[in-house]
Amino acid sequence: METTAASATAKAENLRSPRVAVAGVSGYAGGELARLLLRHPGMKDAAPLFLGRAGESASDAATTIEALHPHLAGISQQGNASHAVRSFNWDRLAGSGIEILFMATPHEQSREWAPEAIARGIRVIDLSGAWRLDEDANRAIYKLHDADPALAAKLQAEAVYGCPELHRDAIRTARLIANPGCYSTSMILALAPLTRAGVVDLDRGIVCDAKSGVSGAGKAPTSKTHFMYAADNLSAYAVFNHRHTGELLEQLHLTSDQIVFTPHLLPIPRGIMATIYLKLKQKTTAAQVGELFANFYKGSPMVRLHPTPELPQIQHVVRTNFCDLGFVLAEDGHRLVIVSCLDNLLKGAAGQAVQNMNVMCGFKEEEGLL
Amino acid sequence: METTAASATAKAENLRSPRVAVAGVSGYAGGELARLLLRHPGMKDAAPLFLGRAGESASDAATTIEALHPHLAGISQQGNASHAVRSFNWDRLAGSGIEILFMATPHEQSREWAPEAIARGIRVIDLSGAWRLDEDANRAIYKLHDADPALAAKLQAEAVYGCPELHRDAIRTARLIANPGCYSTSMILALAPLTRAGVVDLDRGIVCDAKSGVSGAGKAPTSKTHFMYAADNLSAYAVFNHRHTGELLEQLHLTSDQIVFTPHLLPIPRGIMATIYLKLKQKTTAAQVGELFANFYKGSPMVRLHPTPELPQIQHVVRTNFCDLGFVLAEDGHRLVIVSCLDNLLKGAAGQAVQNMNVMCGFKEEEGLL
Amino acid sequence: METTAASATAKAENLRSPRVAVAGVSGYAGGELARLLLRHPGMKDAAPLFLGRAGESASDAATTIEALHPHLAGISQQGNASHAVRSFNWDRLAGSGIEILFMATPHEQSREWAPEAIARGIRVIDLSGAWRLDEDANRAIYKLHDADPALAAKLQAEAVYGCPELHRDAIRTARLIANPGCYSTSMILALAPLTRAGVVDLDRGIVCDAKSGVSGAGKAPTSKTHFMYAADNLSAYAVFNHRHTGELLEQLHLTSDQIVFTPHLLPIPRGIMATIYLKLKQKTTAAQVGELFANFYKGSPMVRLHPTPELPQIQHVVRTNFCDLGFVLAEDGHRLVIVSCLDNLLKGAAGQAVQNMNVMCGFKEEEGLL
Amino acid sequence: METTAASATAKAENLRSPRVAVAGVSGYAGGELARLLLRHPGMKDAAPLFLGRAGESASDAATTIEALHPHLAGISQQGNASHAVRSFNWDRLAGSGIEILFMATPHEQSREWAPEAIARGIRVIDLSGAWRLDEDANRAIYKLHDADPALAAKLQAEAVYGCPELHRDAIRTARLIANPGCYSTSMILALAPLTRAGVVDLDRGIVCDAKSGVSGAGKAPTSKTHFMYAADNLSAYAVFNHRHTGELLEQLHLTSDQIVFTPHLLPIPRGIMATIYLKLKQKTTAAQVGELFANFYKGSPMVRLHPTPELPQIQHVVRTNFCDLGFVLAEDGHRLVIVSCLDNLLKGAAGQAVQNMNVMCGFKEEEGLL
Repeated sequence: METTAASATAKAENLRSPRVAVAGVSGYAGGELARLLLRHPGMKDAAPLFLGRAGESASDAATTIEALHPHLAGISQQGNASHAVRSFNWDRLAGSGIEILFMATPHEQSREWAPEAIARGIRVIDLSGAWRLDEDANRAIYKLHDADPALAAKLQAEAVYGCPELHRDAIRTARLIANPGCYSTSMILALAPLTRAGVVDLDRGIVCDAKSGVSGAGKAPTSKTHFMYAADNLSAYAVFNHRHTGELLEQLHLTSDQIVFTPHLLPIPRGIMATIYLKLKQKTTAAQVGELFANFYKGSPMVRLHPTPELPQIQHVVRTNFCDLGFVLAEDGHRLVIVSCLDNLLKGAAGQAVQNMNVMCGFKEEEGLL
Repeated sequence: METTAASATAKAENLRSPRVAVAGVSGYAGGELARLLLRHPGMKDAAPLFLGRAGESASDAATTIEALHPHLAGISQQGNASHAVRSFNWDRLAGSGIEILFMATPHEQSREWAPEAIARGIRVIDLSGAWRLDEDANRAIYKLHDADPALAAKLQAEAVYGCPELHRDAIRTARLIANPGCYSTSMILALAPLTRAGVVDLDRGIVCDAKSGVSGAGKAPTSKTHFMYAADNLSAYAVFNHRHTGELLEQLHLTSDQIVFTPHLLPIPRGIMATIYLKLKQKTTAAQVGELFANFYKGSPMVRLHPTPELPQIQHVVRTNFCDLGFVLAEDGHRLVIVSCLDNLLKGAAGQAVQNMNVMCGFKEEEGLL
Repeated sequence: METTAASATAKAENLRSPRVAVAGVSGYAGGELARLLLRHPGMKDAAPLFLGRAGESASDAATTIEALHPHLAGISQQGNASHAVRSFNWDRLAGSGIEILFMATPHEQSREWAPEAIARGIRVIDLSGAWRLDEDANRAIYKLHDADPALAAKLQAEAVYGCPELHRDAIRTARLIANPGCYSTSMILALAPLTRAGVVDLDRGIVCDAKSGVSGAGKAPTSKTHFMYAADNLSAYAVFNHRHTGELLEQLHLTSDQIVFTPHLLPIPRGIMATIYLKLKQKTTAAQVGELFANFYKGSPMVRLHPTPELPQIQHVVRTNFCDLGFVLAEDGHRLVIVSCLDNLLKGAAGQAVQNMNVMCGFKEEEGLL
Repeated sequence: METTAASATAKAENLRSPRVAVAGVSGYAGGELARLLLRHPGMKDAAPLFLGRAGESASDAATTIEALHPHLAGISQQGNASHAVRSFNWDRLAGSGIEILFMATPHEQSREWAPEAIARGIRVIDLSGAWRLDEDANRAIYKLHDADPALAAKLQAEAVYGCPELHRDAIRTARLIANPGCYSTSMILALAPLTRAGVVDLDRGIVCDAKSGVSGAGKAPTSKTHFMYAADNLSAYAVFNHRHTGELLEQLHLTSDQIVFTPHLLPIPRGIMATIYLKLKQKTTAAQVGELFANFYKGSPMVRLHPTPELPQIQHVVRTNFCDLGFVLAEDGHRLVIVSCLDNLLKGAAGQAVQNMNVMCGFKEEEGLL
């Protein structure tokens, strides 16, 4: 699929380190971004600039990474000093010569700041849903209110859906990356090799039964993230109306009656599994299915394929940036079950964002992610 | 569906206590049977007889319920004495005047002992898969070897599938109850109201994505039941070939291409959720779907229906004998997602077995189960 | 210890059912009270009156037990009707002829309502810390502000610490029961047989390392009850200053330098274990220690003693009202480790409250608790 | 304490990569060793040699790291090839020019192989208990049977207890490293700064209440590592007789009546917390205690100190090689509670082993461990 990562990074040896900032470091994805970037070989010369997000009080913002995320103490490449977290401020970004801005911020915030950043010549990798969908779908689902709708629409059209396995070439030169949703990534990577090959019986419909760990629900304490609610439990939610459905439809070129996706809340901290059911149009062998996946992901170091009938498990991918895929084909040669696993905070958020940065900067795609 | 529990137990006030025995009390289902029967109002006069299972050494069998299951100490209705567990022995059963035998034993054992018990006039409630399926299916799936194949076939034909919500009348007088599988119960109760009404588009196929707690995997320590394997994990298994599929096909009158069922291992001790996807033939309203369920389960005290779009969760049913059902219908009036939850050791095993005993003996169906 | 439960309930056969109300049913302890009372044999004639707590909006209060606690649906002894939860109101209590009021309310609320209830002739079982300590200690620890300090002081002096194993006789006739803290119960029951016998070397000091499941932290979603904080974690808190320490000092007649107690938050829903370290004054045998415990808890059906060196585990007691005790004595005959386990919501809260009601009403002490 | 890591590695820039082998890669510690070494900057030129352990069948041994530990697929620094696991064989070690041998093997195996390895000029880092204690204690606790007792005794005397924070200088030149136990490490690092300073009132006794995740119990499926036993539970074990006690006594120069240590099994995969209670001889300020720790751990990058009264939690250290320490001093200036946390598979096993290798080879002490 497209240029492989290997060829793209042949000349990457003497790359200059980019100056990067992270807005919204207090959340889970922000914390993972901090962890990855603090240890990223490309950041050896200068640590990232860590920023709060609007809505946090000044006192919240004036803290350190180590105070927000105690497990990160002592891991810096820049000596033992702790890393300040400052309030978000355009002068601060300009003064630091920031070239790439990661936004782990609510979508309203991303929608407000990204145009400004791009106007200032800063490339943006946005982890929210603000720029992932077509203008219309996005507006319907996320109820966006832009200061300059025309500019927003233009940027929306320009934004690249940050799934390197699908859009590697466009990512290289993109100014605005819409980092995919966690559920979406797990399902799109499982289905794209088949839907793009046109082998799926879409009349029959695709069923995606997806399960996510609690970190996917965010850091805010709510009745749903209470330990007593989540532990020893399983619950389905947002049946027929989860926001990530829009990404499936657009990236896989499906209509809403061709796919159903039900998310569930798992009693584990992190990890997503999607179990996907579909019917192949033609009678097919398992070897043929395996080949479709292998060809599609040649040159994609962050997708691991399991030989059928072995299936990936959430444990295999937790705290990695891999998406693991496996499948079982029924004896009839038609009915197929695919299992896709990833870590929702890494390949489903912060890890994929760093992978996008790697592609944008010409680093090895897996740099700092193994 | 059939006679209601209420009318059947109108005259149950002065029922005689049956003399019951439990074979195989060392496992999880056996432990739950012991717990339920030790506190069952119908067992006030005489505690059940607790027996090991063949294959256990004599020393294993000569123990107490409290030694096997420390949490059961001190709950007896018959004073503070501990309850002996004895080795299985026909003379012992005869000497105790046993009328009903619960078998929480491996299916080979059940297949061997049930004919003998019935020949001795003892009614059997078997929790294994030994008698659940048609002779041919059973033989193919469970690889049975009977001493007297003709007798076994006769009993097989006579055995009643112990799902009171479907076969209440037959259970009343049955000599041999095949207590349903845990996964099967969750899916059959979710689907029977619809398949029996003929409203499901079977050409489209039914997808059942089911998830179970670890107790469903049994008490034997294996690499799959190791805490390090199960915790913080989710894994799919037995894709397209789980034994319980046979029960779905027979009880719902489906062919194997009309339904697919994938079990997953959840990182929780107990509980099953099945998320079920199907298409209704005709455009339907949620109210109509709700009515189908309500009518079907009128008089069934152990099924609780959630008003759409509320969905049951595993926490709601753990340590109860309820099966909770809920559903969401898509806006198109065709696509339906049903969520079914139960406790695999109770409604999925020991609780349902006691429910069957209640029906057989004329107790209130929910007696000792709330 | 005092009169045994057995003799006390000899004449309990024809007891009249008391009319009871529960204030504060929305929390975890309130939910457990509802569950226990809905199935209590003494409540067969009339279900308890369920009330919200002040501070809840009217709309919160006008709900049902089943809406607050979905797992309780369908368990009523009074038919299938759901149970209304009403806002707290003195006329409502009077109109229902309430004789006993359980208060699962914050201590400020309990401090305000208990005097009024007692003035109206209603006996109170209060689950908060409002009345557990001496006037001075209570005031220092809970920062109480009473409308009528003199009356409050009088009631404080009259209040009985609701640990039936220690104060059974006083509980029978008490107007105001201060139901003990969960941690306190686990440690007091482990230590009282030894401190009362005067065998502990108090100069050496007693160390209590206690661990509790997350339900002990309450239902309010906070950063500490977030699944991501509690899961896969263990944290110590309130070192040298947990409120329950006061109960230890008063009930065991110790000074604050003679005992240290450190609570920890366990990644489990419920259950407490206290591991207790002390030195015996005299060289002692394990049999002698066992005898001290056995004599002390003769006639106490809710304490289970493990034969040394077997130790209780949290699993043994979860969802029971038992306190399980075990110990190991060092070879030197002096150093002793005691392990005490209970369910913080049952023997540590709602179960003990019902046990107190049983004693107050002349029911069997374990009635409705097995 | 001793030479600091910083000065020792000043000239470490152009270090030659050592050739290393790992025996016993199938277990949890072995898997972590493989993960750390596959990504270690010092192993860029040549991957480690992975070996099974005796007692594994030939077929077990002839596998790959990725088959044993699926989460490790794709992380190699040496391209995408999988890494073979071969059976243990001296010719194979010689042929590969192995200089350092990690042994994640049972202590009997370590006791047999280490002398041979050293005779062949291979330095050994042994993760078992085989060489940790004085000859006599070791023999009493581990019931060792040596082929050549005199040689074994000589090596025993020479073996260095592999705690770099205590024995950094000796580790640099050691031929045989006895990598410390997981519990021991957590307690020794918490206590050494105080016992070596002579400030602890040893007559009063030290109480160590320690809790470990299930990986500490090993990979073999047993009734104790079954998910149903460990989950939602807490259990104490080996009271007064855990093997690691010997390490405490020797490293801290204590007698057995001066310290008691009780281990507990936590329902989490990994992590240890030790809560430690002691009395200081002299009235002391918290600042003074903090200074003792700070001075002791100057130059030790893998120990992180929390400012009092903040305490470390298990989550802070899981999947890191840090030991985190915190304390609270009572108002009396005497009674002290210390909390020590580490990851039992990293700082408690594989991570500390790599840390030892770093010291032995002149790498930065934290190389490959952040």
